[in-house]
Amino acid sequence: MKPPAVVLLSGGLDSTTVLAIAREQGFAPHALSFRYGQRHAHELQAAAAVAHALGAVRHLVATIDLRPFGGSALTDAAVAVPKGRALEDAEIPVTYVPARNTVFLSFALAWAETLDASDIFIGVNALDYSGYPDCRPEYIAAFEAMAWLATKAGVEGRQRLRIHAPLMHLNKAQIVREGLRLGVDYALTSSCYDPGPGGRPCGGCDACRLRARGFAEAGVADPLLRRFGRD
Amino acid sequence: MKPPAVVLLSGGLDSTTVLAIAREQGFAPHALSFRYGQRHAHELQAAAAVAHALGAVRHLVATIDLRPFGGSALTDAAVAVPKGRALEDAEIPVTYVPARNTVFLSFALAWAETLDASDIFIGVNALDYSGYPDCRPEYIAAFEAMAWLATKAGVEGRQRLRIHAPLMHLNKAQIVREGLRLGVDYALTSSCYDPGPGGRPCGGCDACRLRARGFAEAGVADPLLRRFGRD
Repeated sequence: MKPPAVVLLSGGLDSTTVLAIAREQGFAPHALSFRYGQRHAHELQAAAAVAHALGAVRHLVATIDLRPFGGSALTDAAVAVPKGRALEDAEIPVTYVPARNTVFLSFALAWAETLDASDIFIGVNALDYSGYPDCRPEYIAAFEAMAWLATKAGVEGRQRLRIHAPLMHLNKAQIVREGLRLGVDYALTSSCYDPGPGGRPCGGCDACRLRARGFAEAGVADPLLRRFGRD
Repeated sequence: MKPPAVVLLSGGLDSTTVLAIAREQGFAPHALSFRYGQRHAHELQAAAAVAHALGAVRHLVATIDLRPFGGSALTDAAVAVPKGRALEDAEIPVTYVPARNTVFLSFALAWAETLDASDIFIGVNALDYSGYPDCRPEYIAAFEAMAWLATKAGVEGRQRLRIHAPLMHLNKAQIVREGLRLGVDYALTSSCYDPGPGGRPCGGCDACRLRARGFAEAGVADPLLRRFGRD
């Protein structure tokens, strides 16, 4: 029987590729998404479609509410999503959600513990990371060390929990190529921070522009744009 | 102006004492409680009463749902709360909630980040910890190291985040004495895992028995029992 692994799945390009990688590595993937007060529910539909297409054993959507904490354009209706800013801007963008990956990985850890799984996958990336502190390798290593001390499995010495971040050192073009090699249908995914009706990408936010650059550098057309007649 | 601190507050004896300690140390306490699928909502009422009585600047109740992950008598209706088991039993009890403190501290970190607070207080305890792995000092140190890498403040080198666990090495009697010294009204608190109407403590669960032992060893009557005519 394949060992279970929890895969954090937003329904975007990166996490979808990670789900395909976890499956190829021989894990039985359990996909975990969040309803966390984000403005657009479209990415949850994308996550469900992707989980189904890539054969996740189960897809669970956990509801949490980060809105009372405020402080981000992705969850706070009073802060506008920036368009067209320089992608190389070193400043942390307002789309940063406070402690988001820490919260998400904590829930993944809770599920991993009840599944008796010792593997968690997350699609963070140090190269295209847009200035988010919780996307760096040293952060992932620190979370892994903490998780090992937090759980029954750790206390009982049964297993060493591992946080897999297989995209950490890949650029967007390499991620796209890896996904295509594994048969990912990127038309099912959703990356835009501010999508229109039916999930139509805005084309101007950081996420849309990083994605476009990735497909351009990989030398392939984005099937999502084809779906919306923009190819 | 007093610096803000986030204080995890269940409404029980330990976290209430921690709130009083944070206030005495000169912080402006921001109390954080959770509605997390626990069977009894009474402890949230206790938390609100305690937050008010001890002058918390704000009391926020975050809703999360750990039930889909299952695996604990505190959140899973199919698992019975054990009564009368040996308190020195080294085995991890079924009341253990998977990754609970990690999830709670993650939310505290999110709030701390938006408040620009560098201090989080939690009432964990290594002596009376009932076998929970995420109550050990090495776990708290690992979370602190991870949190420092997770946040904007860490990246920008502005401040070092601290997780305060002032009860870590106190026994229940010492906690009670410390709280009484700081003027805590323990009649407002709720410890029982399985309370009756109005929050009446069952008297048989681990939490009730640890509490009773603490008051007995401190040589004082528990004002909560007096409230229910059991003194």
